Amino acid sequence: YGETADADGQASFKALVGKKFEELAQQSPEGWAGQEESPYLQDALKIAYPTFSTSTLIDRANQAFHQWRKVDAAERAGILVESLERIKFRFFEIAYATMHTTGQGYMMAFQASGPHAADRALEAIAAGHEELQRFPAKALWDKPMGKYNLQINKEWRAVPKGISLVIGCSTFPTWNSVTGIYGSLVTGNSVIVKPHPGAILPIAIFVAEIQKVLVENNLDPNICQLAVDTFDKMITKELAEHKEVKLIDYTGNSAFGNYLEGLQGKTVFTEKTGVNSVILDSAEDIDKAVANLTFSVNLYSGQMCTAPQNFYVPKDGIKTPNGVVSFDEFAQKFVDSVNGLVDNPKAGPFVLGAVQNKKTLDRVADAENLPGKVWLKSRTFENPMFKKARIATPVVVEIDASKEDVFSKELFGPIALLIKTKDTDESIALAQKMAMAHGAISCAAYTTDANVREKIADEMSLAATPVSFNLTGGIYMNQNAAFSDFHVTGGNPSGNASFTNPEYVTKRFTWVGHREPVKA
Amino acid sequence: YGETADADGQASFKALVGKKFEELAQQSPEGWAGQEESPYLQDALKIAYPTFSTSTLIDRANQAFHQWRKVDAAERAGILVESLERIKFRFFEIAYATMHTTGQGYMMAFQASGPHAADRALEAIAAGHEELQRFPAKALWDKPMGKYNLQINKEWRAVPKGISLVIGCSTFPTWNSVTGIYGSLVTGNSVIVKPHPGAILPIAIFVAEIQKVLVENNLDPNICQLAVDTFDKMITKELAEHKEVKLIDYTGNSAFGNYLEGLQGKTVFTEKTGVNSVILDSAEDIDKAVANLTFSVNLYSGQMCTAPQNFYVPKDGIKTPNGVVSFDEFAQKFVDSVNGLVDNPKAGPFVLGAVQNKKTLDRVADAENLPGKVWLKSRTFENPMFKKARIATPVVVEIDASKEDVFSKELFGPIALLIKTKDTDESIALAQKMAMAHGAISCAAYTTDANVREKIADEMSLAATPVSFNLTGGIYMNQNAAFSDFHVTGGNPSGNASFTNPEYVTKRFTWVGHREPVKA
Repeated sequence: YGETADADGQASFKALVGKKFEELAQQSPEGWAGQEESPYLQDALKIAYPTFSTSTLIDRANQAFHQWRKVDAAERAGILVESLERIKFRFFEIAYATMHTTGQGYMMAFQASGPHAADRALEAIAAGHEELQRFPAKALWDKPMGKYNLQINKEWRAVPKGISLVIGCSTFPTWNSVTGIYGSLVTGNSVIVKPHPGAILPIAIFVAEIQKVLVENNLDPNICQLAVDTFDKMITKELAEHKEVKLIDYTGNSAFGNYLEGLQGKTVFTEKTGVNSVILDSAEDIDKAVANLTFSVNLYSGQMCTAPQNFYVPKDGIKTPNGVVSFDEFAQKFVDSVNGLVDNPKAGPFVLGAVQNKKTLDRVADAENLPGKVWLKSRTFENPMFKKARIATPVVVEIDASKEDVFSKELFGPIALLIKTKDTDESIALAQKMAMAHGAISCAAYTTDANVREKIADEMSLAATPVSFNLTGGIYMNQNAAFSDFHVTGGNPSGNASFTNPEYVTKRFTWVGHREPVKA
Repeated sequence: YGETADADGQASFKALVGKKFEELAQQSPEGWAGQEESPYLQDALKIAYPTFSTSTLIDRANQAFHQWRKVDAAERAGILVESLERIKFRFFEIAYATMHTTGQGYMMAFQASGPHAADRALEAIAAGHEELQRFPAKALWDKPMGKYNLQINKEWRAVPKGISLVIGCSTFPTWNSVTGIYGSLVTGNSVIVKPHPGAILPIAIFVAEIQKVLVENNLDPNICQLAVDTFDKMITKELAEHKEVKLIDYTGNSAFGNYLEGLQGKTVFTEKTGVNSVILDSAEDIDKAVANLTFSVNLYSGQMCTAPQNFYVPKDGIKTPNGVVSFDEFAQKFVDSVNGLVDNPKAGPFVLGAVQNKKTLDRVADAENLPGKVWLKSRTFENPMFKKARIATPVVVEIDASKEDVFSKELFGPIALLIKTKDTDESIALAQKMAMAHGAISCAAYTTDANVREKIADEMSLAATPVSFNLTGGIYMNQNAAFSDFHVTGGNPSGNASFTNPEYVTKRFTWVGHREPVKA
């Protein structure tokens, strides 16, 4: 990226703060608004974005749709790839924008919002382009009928659905939104991007770059519009319920996701919440396992959809080559490990980042009142670079397996529950049940027994939950590699927003075949 | 098929009538029932099928599922192809079974229920097998991390959804059901086939043959169960609402289809009703066009989901090389042509077949009371082979384009509405509107103008309706070729049961990926 890329990106970000965001090509704003706040500074960013009424957004999207759908599929893909080339030069700026809206640490903000998001966008373009080529544009159908041949010219068109609405979330404003945006655009739909009012800037930069490339190609920039709203006047429902909106992509809480899925006549992709499990049966090196899980719990203060929450530990402990580690020994090792990471000034502030939403602090505080032994209370510490940062370290609580109501819901944030089970079979059964009933996006398991491993792999497969086995060292259960880690593939209530699945793009258009006899 | 195949098939069919159907391998029937009636004889077939309670069906399907899902995908496909090989020897028997349950003519009954249904089943097997191979079973992920390489073994499993329910219809008991049955089976689901109580035998023969091949392979025959019910005690809702049923395939009326689509937590494929249009703008040879449309209206007495209903004719007539054919001239040509076909003893009885449901006769009678000129009344005639056959010839009524409420619903049966429009633009707009609002499965258009042709192709594409242009001679708008005519691809309210679309099989299973670091 060049030696000065980081400093330049930071400077560019700072230059945007406190001003109108004037990069969009959407004409005649009907207002200006913006309520973003930095979790690191606990202060408003004071960036104002152009705002538009729902009817203006829909009218423009409709008009742009009929232009865009007629652009050749390969040309559409080319334009979208070009936008990613441009966005590459703004990765650092996007990283700072992400830090100061989501609270992510610098490394994660750079990776997730920049190159990883662009990877996912590129894969959506590729998947869409591939599916658009699945059937030939035309063919001659020639059927011998005895005395003559029946000859029919057949043609097949990939017809986009119409207007696509992409609803962003507050924690991963680009990573979770770009697949829907690029997936809908490459298949010929026009897109309205409705970011979370708390995390607009990162995706606004993406949309601005897309619009610039559209304009350069003499196309209507409203093919991809940004639709900003404010906490006090959200326009999401108005947009989602509009009859012209045919496609909806959403990341966020399950209640709103379920409402969207219930709307008639829409194709809806969701990534909702889940209850992620860790199954501890046996381990080659329990300390390395604990260290790995510690990182996963602390990473971005547990605000990832893939963060672990329920740790199932048998009451008789975890088998290791050096003997059984009892439940209490494991709990103590985990507490010590969390404290070690949090108190390491070279790690803690960067791994935990900041807490995006004030409500998460309340949830963490409430966790101390759960019915079980509190092994570790949440606390705060001073981030040397951002003294006002909103910080909460993990709370660790022991819960008996019989108290299912306590752990059968997502407790978003740095909250770890150590659930004491009868044995590993009960651990597996509970993890599967949680995933089937409440969704799950990730799962970790530690076992040195091949039969137990296969049982976990099989039972969690039935709950459509990917399992990371025996992770130690530099890879964590909450990390997803683009292209090869299949994320939210649709088999449990957490949603169906897997861009690795062909359905994710094929549902954005319809095949229609026409036919006509060959003229004699 | 051999010289005696037809006679043998007819004899086999006759041997089944009036008896218990004992070919199924489903053990310990809880009862015997069957209320099929031949529309040709207007008499009960008196075939009794084993019946089972919903809980028995579900328990057996659940148990069979866990056996079937572990059978290798290629072996599953092999078993299913083998079942089609066996069914081939019963095509004539199935043809007679289809005639005497649906009322189809002999030719259609043979083609649609036998070879065409088997074609579709084969394509479902092929599509499923292909999609199951889309991702590799395993891969080594090797990421350079600077000083070392991060190496992860990744594996991907195609996990079937569980129990699949396939709900049959009374008019095409195999053609419409086999894609769901074979699509679900090849992807590893267990299937419960719930036929329409009026049309069981054709699909019962399919299920029996599948069960025989399963048993020969030492597999549980309950992998594919037949679930027979009676008109007075239908079990469809009980099955559909059961929490263990994850997949539903349905063909039939829109009200029940919409109810099924509204069930939470199910993947539902439907083929519902539609309002099919014919747009008449201009024609090279109007008489050939009329002859072609006449056949389409009469074929199986308009009881195909692809039959035309709304004929949009401009008030100023249809342009031809020999001058304009006025609205009234067209209407008269159409009436004469229908009479010609119906009164031709070598054509009428075979093309029209018989009427499956008594209610269709009422609907045809009511059509004479629609607000417009009745150009042709429905009547009956004697089928020389089946003197008691239930027969109704087409009714033709002129309706003004302003009376949208009259023609904006499906009038199932031999009912043709000649709708007088301002011009072709209004015809196109109405055809598109009907398809978007009420669904459409087919459309025909006659035009010699390339611009009008493209406008129709484009506007009807947006309503996801395939258009047959300028058909004359031996191909008709209501016929669908397997493999190349895309049927109900999901873009309008008629449903989404297109087995030509990869989604039709990919939604029957979920991809799940597990991973584990390579041991050092």
